[in-house]
Amino acid sequence: MMTLSTATIPEATQPAELESILAAAETASRIWAARLPSERAVALEAVADALDAARDVLVPTAMVETNLPEARLTGELKRTTFQLRLFAEVLRDGGYLDARIDHPDPEWPMGAPRPDLRRVLEPIGPVLVFAASNFPFAFSVAGGDTASALAAGNAVILKAHPGHLLLSAQTGEVVSAALAAAGAPHGTFSVIFGTDAGSEALADPRVKASGFTGSISGGRALFDIANSRPEPIPFYGELGSNNPVFVTPAAAAANGPDIASGFVGSFTAGAGQFCTKPGTLFVPAGSGLTEALRQAALPAEAKLLNSRLHQGYREVLGTLTANSRFSVLAQGPNPLADPPGPTLLLTTAENVFASPRELQQECFGPTAVVVEYDDVSQLPELAATFEGQLTATVFGTDEDDMAGLVEVLARKAGRVLWNQWPTGVSVTYAQQHGGPYPATTAVGSTSVGTAAIGRFLRPVAYQGFPEHLLPLSLKEDNPLGIPRLINGERT
Amino acid sequence: MMTLSTATIPEATQPAELESILAAAETASRIWAARLPSERAVALEAVADALDAARDVLVPTAMVETNLPEARLTGELKRTTFQLRLFAEVLRDGGYLDARIDHPDPEWPMGAPRPDLRRVLEPIGPVLVFAASNFPFAFSVAGGDTASALAAGNAVILKAHPGHLLLSAQTGEVVSAALAAAGAPHGTFSVIFGTDAGSEALADPRVKASGFTGSISGGRALFDIANSRPEPIPFYGELGSNNPVFVTPAAAAANGPDIASGFVGSFTAGAGQFCTKPGTLFVPAGSGLTEALRQAALPAEAKLLNSRLHQGYREVLGTLTANSRFSVLAQGPNPLADPPGPTLLLTTAENVFASPRELQQECFGPTAVVVEYDDVSQLPELAATFEGQLTATVFGTDEDDMAGLVEVLARKAGRVLWNQWPTGVSVTYAQQHGGPYPATTAVGSTSVGTAAIGRFLRPVAYQGFPEHLLPLSLKEDNPLGIPRLINGERT
Repeated sequence: MMTLSTATIPEATQPAELESILAAAETASRIWAARLPSERAVALEAVADALDAARDVLVPTAMVETNLPEARLTGELKRTTFQLRLFAEVLRDGGYLDARIDHPDPEWPMGAPRPDLRRVLEPIGPVLVFAASNFPFAFSVAGGDTASALAAGNAVILKAHPGHLLLSAQTGEVVSAALAAAGAPHGTFSVIFGTDAGSEALADPRVKASGFTGSISGGRALFDIANSRPEPIPFYGELGSNNPVFVTPAAAAANGPDIASGFVGSFTAGAGQFCTKPGTLFVPAGSGLTEALRQAALPAEAKLLNSRLHQGYREVLGTLTANSRFSVLAQGPNPLADPPGPTLLLTTAENVFASPRELQQECFGPTAVVVEYDDVSQLPELAATFEGQLTATVFGTDEDDMAGLVEVLARKAGRVLWNQWPTGVSVTYAQQHGGPYPATTAVGSTSVGTAAIGRFLRPVAYQGFPEHLLPLSLKEDNPLGIPRLINGERT
Repeated sequence: MMTLSTATIPEATQPAELESILAAAETASRIWAARLPSERAVALEAVADALDAARDVLVPTAMVETNLPEARLTGELKRTTFQLRLFAEVLRDGGYLDARIDHPDPEWPMGAPRPDLRRVLEPIGPVLVFAASNFPFAFSVAGGDTASALAAGNAVILKAHPGHLLLSAQTGEVVSAALAAAGAPHGTFSVIFGTDAGSEALADPRVKASGFTGSISGGRALFDIANSRPEPIPFYGELGSNNPVFVTPAAAAANGPDIASGFVGSFTAGAGQFCTKPGTLFVPAGSGLTEALRQAALPAEAKLLNSRLHQGYREVLGTLTANSRFSVLAQGPNPLADPPGPTLLLTTAENVFASPRELQQECFGPTAVVVEYDDVSQLPELAATFEGQLTATVFGTDEDDMAGLVEVLARKAGRVLWNQWPTGVSVTYAQQHGGPYPATTAVGSTSVGTAAIGRFLRPVAYQGFPEHLLPLSLKEDNPLGIPRLINGERT
C-alpha cells in the first residue's frame, strides 16, 4: 500500500495560499498547453496508474467520509482511471483539435481572394473545477472535468467538496505527485478548500473556465459570479434533474414486473443520490403497475452521503408528503431517519398538469414519484411540462407509436433512453451528460464522454503564417498525423 | 427589378405582434428542425437567389441609410449570399452533425457493459439575432448568425438595427418570401423593430439562444439579460476589439513604406467602422515608420454610418486627443466633422504600460494609434497588456524570432495574422471570428465561417433505441450518407 503524507482534514485555503496557487496555475497552464498531446497523454495515464495503486488508501477513506460501500467505490475508482486513460486515447487520436486548413484561393467565390487560414482548438487557460459530493472519485478531484481540462492542456484548480475533505486531500496528493513525476510543471494541479476560496478563485481573472456539479441553488450562485466578472467565463454547471420515465400501456402489459423492479433498483441506487435518478415514473392507470410498485420489495435503508444532505432530504421529503397532491404508495422503515428507508409517492397526471414545478422538484435521496395517467396520448403533453433534464426515458414496445413523445423528450433532455434505466452513465465516445437548464447551465456541452474535452478549448485561426511559426497541428506536412479538414475535405 | 411592398420605415414592434411572432417561431422551429438538412440547404439557396435578385432594390436603400458606397455594398451582398450557399454545402456534407455511434460492448473496460449510445447535434430552438450597423447585409438581417441559425434548423427572430430600418424590412421581406416559397413554415423567419421588442424577446422563454454584434455596453446589457433569465441561454455577443498590430524592426526596415500605406488603408477602410480595424500599430522608435505615417497620404473624408455613431466617434476622439499621453501624428481635414478626416495619434510603449485600458479603448471610426517601442523584446509584454481581441497581427520577417509574441497573441485573440491586415474577414472552413472577452462573450465560438453553425446546436444522445425511432443521422445504415464516429473510429 502506498503511503500518503495527508492524514488530517485540511483547513480552508487562506488568501495568501490561494494567490500562490492561482499564480502557479497561470504559469503552469502555459507550459502544459505547449506540451505535445501525446506527452499529456502519458501524464494522464501516469495519474490513472497512481490512483489505481493508491486504491487501498483512497477507498477506505472514501468509505468513512461518504458512507458508500466498498464495491461501489472500487467500481467508481475504476471508472475514474478508465476515464483518464480514455482521454489519453483522445489526445493521441487528435481529432478533438478540429484542425482546419484553407489554402489560399484567388478564385474563392465570396468575391475576394481567400487567404491561407488555419484553425485549431487551443487550451482555454486555468480551469476551476467544483467537485461533487455524490461521486467522490468520478465527479470529484480526479473526475471528469479534471480529466478533460488537463487533457485539453489546462492547469486545474480543484475546489474540494466538504463532504469528503480528507479523500480530496489524499487524491490531490496522488494526482499532483503523478503529474510532477510525469514532468508536468508545478501548479498544473492544485486542490483548494473552503467556500470562500472557491468563490474568490472563480472571480479571479486568471481563471478562464469553470465546471461544477451540485445543487441548483449553489450552481446558480456560482454561475452568476462567473457571468458578472469583468471578463465573464464559461461556467459548466450541472445542477438538477428529475429524469422522468414514461411507461406505455403496452410496455406495462408486457413487462410490468420487470419495470417495477427495475425502477425500484434505479431510484434507490446509490441511496437515490445519482444525478440521473429517475424521479418520476408515468404509468398507465389501471395497468397493475401501480399495484406492483406498492407491493415491490424495497431495498434496505442506506446512509446518505452526509448529514447535511440528509437534512435537505428530510426537508424536501417532508414538503412532498405534506402536499395533498401526493399520497404515499410504498415506504420502507424509518423514511425520515438516517439511514432512511425508500419512499414512493403517488399522484395523477391531472395534478402534474395543475402544478408541474411543485411536483417535479428534485428530491436528492431514495424517493421517487409515480404518476398515473389515463391515456397514452397525454404523454407528450406531460413531457412538455418538464424543464430541462439530463435524461428522459421511455419504456415502450415496437408497436407503440412514440415518435411524438421522443421528439418532445429530445428537446427537453440531453440523453433519451429506450427501455433502459438512466442511472449508470457510461463513459464513451457518444455519451452526452448535459441538457437544457436547470439540468445544466451550458446546453451545448457534456461533462461525460470524449466530447467533454471541447468545453475547455477555444478556437484560434492563424492567417498567412510562415510554416516555422505554425502550431504542429497546422503545419503543412501534418507531423502529428491527425485528421484535418483541408479546403473543406476531411483528410 | 423585383418590387417590394415595404416602402416606409417600419414602426416599433408592439407587444401583441411580438407575441404572435414568438409563438409562430416556436412552432416553426420544431417543423424546420425536422426537415432534412438537404431540404434546408435548398431553402438557403433560394434565399440567396432571392437576395441576389433584389440587389437593385436593396443596395440603393442601403446606400441611403448607411452612407456606404455602392461598390462596397454590392460586394457585401455577394459575400452574404455566398455565405448562405456555403451553409447549404455544410448541410449537404453533414459533418457538422458530429454524429457518433457506440455499439454495445459487454467488455467495455470501464467496469460495466457499454450500452448502444448514439449522439448527434440537434437544433437549439428559436434564435434571436441582433443585427449590426456596420455590415447592413453580412452582419444584419440575412447575415452570418441568421444563415447559421437557419442552417442549424432553428427559427430566427431578427432584431433590426435602427441604422437601416427600411433595408431591414425590405431584406426581411425577401428572406421570408423565399423561405415560404421553399416550403419553410410560417414563423421560420421574422424581423422585429425597437429596443423594447428586442429586450422582451431576449427575456422570453421561447427564445433559446441569441447572437449580437455591436458595442461593449449594449452587448453586455443584453448578455446580462440572457444570463439572468430563469432559464439562462447562450448569448453570442461580439462586442469590441482594438486589433493591435506589431511591426518588428526587421519588417519596418524591409517594408516600411508598404506597411505604412497598408495600415492607412486598413484603419480607414469602411471609414474605420470594421470590427477588425487595426486600432493600434506598434512601431520601432527611430525606424522611420513613424515619419512615413506622418507623411502618408490619408484618404478623403467619408461619412460615418449614421449621426449617432458620429456623435460617439466625436466623443471618443475628443477624449483621446485631450489625453496628454497622445499627440496627433497625422490628421485629415475636419477630423471631428461628418464626414471626418482620418486621425492618427502617437504615443509610446511607456504610456501603454502605464495606462493600458485608457489607451486601448476602441474608437469606432477612422482613428488609430501608433505606439513607438524601444526594443523588440518589449513586444510580448506589450501584447500582454491587451484584453481579449478578435484579431492580433504581426508584421515580421523570417529572420525574426516571434514565437514568444505569437504565443501571447494566440491567447489574446481569435485570429492571429502574419504580414496581412485584419480587415477583410474571409468566409471559409477555417475562419475564426471571435475571441476572449470583450471581443466576444463566448470565447469558444465563431460568428464567421462554417464552424459558426455549432453555436446554434446542442447534443442529444439516444440510448438503447430501436432503429425506427432513431433520427436519420443515427440509423445504422446511414441513410444521410454523413461522416460518423463509430466506436471511436471515423467513417
